[in-house]
Amino acid sequence: MTYCVAISLDSGMLFASDSRTNAGVDHIMTFSKMRVYEKPDDRVIVLLTSGNLAITQGAVNMLDRQQHAHEGTRTMWSVDSMVDVAEIAGTALREVEQRDGNVLTQSGIDASADLIVGGQIRSEEPRLFHVYQQGNFIETSTDTPYFQLGEFKYGKPILDRVLTPATPHREAAKCVLISFDSTLRSNISVGLPLDILWYPKDALRVGVQHKIREGDAYWTMLRNSWGGGLRKVFMEMDNPDWLE
Amino acid sequence: MTYCVAISLDSGMLFASDSRTNAGVDHIMTFSKMRVYEKPDDRVIVLLTSGNLAITQGAVNMLDRQQHAHEGTRTMWSVDSMVDVAEIAGTALREVEQRDGNVLTQSGIDASADLIVGGQIRSEEPRLFHVYQQGNFIETSTDTPYFQLGEFKYGKPILDRVLTPATPHREAAKCVLISFDSTLRSNISVGLPLDILWYPKDALRVGVQHKIREGDAYWTMLRNSWGGGLRKVFMEMDNPDWLE
Repeated sequence: MTYCVAISLDSGMLFASDSRTNAGVDHIMTFSKMRVYEKPDDRVIVLLTSGNLAITQGAVNMLDRQQHAHEGTRTMWSVDSMVDVAEIAGTALREVEQRDGNVLTQSGIDASADLIVGGQIRSEEPRLFHVYQQGNFIETSTDTPYFQLGEFKYGKPILDRVLTPATPHREAAKCVLISFDSTLRSNISVGLPLDILWYPKDALRVGVQHKIREGDAYWTMLRNSWGGGLRKVFMEMDNPDWLE
Repeated sequence: MTYCVAISLDSGMLFASDSRTNAGVDHIMTFSKMRVYEKPDDRVIVLLTSGNLAITQGAVNMLDRQQHAHEGTRTMWSVDSMVDVAEIAGTALREVEQRDGNVLTQSGIDASADLIVGGQIRSEEPRLFHVYQQGNFIETSTDTPYFQLGEFKYGKPILDRVLTPATPHREAAKCVLISFDSTLRSNISVGLPLDILWYPKDALRVGVQHKIREGDAYWTMLRNSWGGGLRKVFMEMDNPDWLE
């Protein structure tokens, strides 16, 4: 499986993804699920993928090829709005699903896949979308500033408790990493390394791209402090007195 | 949906269940998912149910009727081991699935259901089982002392962090209630009131049975302290310095 999170903050956008893929439990591989399309001073587009790896790679390949399309073609490199980018990504996903989906389903293979796509094009506001396998999509709002893909449930409570659009980006990154910690502890289908990308609003170039591997100092500190802190809060709270 | 947890501790068994059922989001009802069969000084058996309500109620009705079976009949009231009880519960579930499952599936209705059944019979050790809709079942071990039913993912991380068979029962109850808090916050298909039951090992009668409703003092304190404590631990941890 997969775990990905993307957050639309007042100050920019934060993306994070794990990199474990598995076909059953005995065929585990490492693939980054983050794809970055950057044309400095013009646009930054980030894609997170989840689901059947052949399907998502198929869609990503279609999008990659658009870089070399004839001038005047409508591609993610030429359009003026992130809405068009979401539509183009959705169309790519839909085409691959139509091409390969039936054959996979007939073989009893799950062909489902979905995407998060976000970023900024020139003077448009940064925008973040969740694209479903059918090619349709939804956008974040101030009430719901984040999207998740894959094994989202383990790590959702901490996001719900902490995140708002006003959350400073380093705090948001800390929150997202705790969310990954909870997910990794309870689900073996999600694994390191993690890809983190920070896009500062109006920069029109990638801010920070960081990979967290086993032994990463901040990740190790975070896991230990969070686990220890939770246990401390837990122990300090009263036990129920109706349970003697 | 549903959320249920049962834990096999060195000192006894703790059971907890929510009571929200829903068919879609516009047909929400309140049903306890905990059923207690007690014959003081002989046996205490607790059943937690999850899934299609008509299926689980069908199975529970079968088990209820066993109380009036002819003497000499093999029922949960007559057998000598909790393994037999798990088998009897599994058979009841399997029979209802065989009777109603196909019709439901043909109507596009999810007929899946499963049970947790635990307790103690006379001098046998207390034992706890997860019974699947096919009627087969598994038992807890010292490595995995608990089972969950239903929307289990949101509340799993705190159980994994805190619980061992040696955990004192009031602390285990606190942990379980935090697990319910995380689940209720992130999933509207799980709701109050909660049923809690504590069975002290070798008592051969129910220890404590407690219902937590909206406004319950301990529940309110727990939610506030836990939420506040988490935010405090969160704020005290360093932010990642690679994200300027």
